[in-house]
Amino acid sequence: MTKAFSKTPPPPYYIVAFSSRKTEGDNGYAEMAKAMEELALQQPGCLGAESARGDDGFGITNSFWKDEESMKVWKANVDHKLAQKLGREIFYSHYVIRVAKVERDYSFEKADI
Amino acid sequence: MTKAFSKTPPPPYYIVAFSSRKTEGDNGYAEMAKAMEELALQQPGCLGAESARGDDGFGITNSFWKDEESMKVWKANVDHKLAQKLGREIFYSHYVIRVAKVERDYSFEKADI
Repeated sequence: MTKAFSKTPPPPYYIVAFSSRKTEGDNGYAEMAKAMEELALQQPGCLGAESARGDDGFGITNSFWKDEESMKVWKANVDHKLAQKLGREIFYSHYVIRVAKVERDYSFEKADI
Repeated sequence: MTKAFSKTPPPPYYIVAFSSRKTEGDNGYAEMAKAMEELALQQPGCLGAESARGDDGFGITNSFWKDEESMKVWKANVDHKLAQKLGREIFYSHYVIRVAKVERDYSFEKADI
């Protein structure tokens, strides 16, 4: 999974905030997640994705999108549809997806010393 | 840190998506983060918070807020201001904050079997 910050453009753009709790064991999850992230980043209108998951199995992936159309196309992508199905059947015990329009952002980066 | 899902109300509401990379070592971070989360959850208009951080130090906290006013009051909270300062000076090498208005959400929870 991407562990770096996404270089998103100035707002407005969209965020899809995906919180999830994994079931126990990998069961092919790491491979699927990597493939889906790579595929998402290839979609027109995908502006990046940031992910974190702790040892307790609770994780958050925030992905960034240009507009409603690009999110809609990704949601309906055939390979992604299969991953969604596997997510519900195997990988996740619980997830919540929130779609939100980014209005502003700000950041901090420590200067190299 | 909260490792559970927040019971957010039907949209619209706001999400503050906070992505960060920690500096090495704890340096009092765990204690500060716990205190800030508890304080945030006590704020009027705070609807919850979800957090995940991986072993590589990259983490995401998504917090949920009723409206612009509640986010503004929290941002200006005196104890939170101090935590922000310590965050820049000690705890974080890089962070990005995105403020977004949630338009829709959906969820999945596996039935107990």
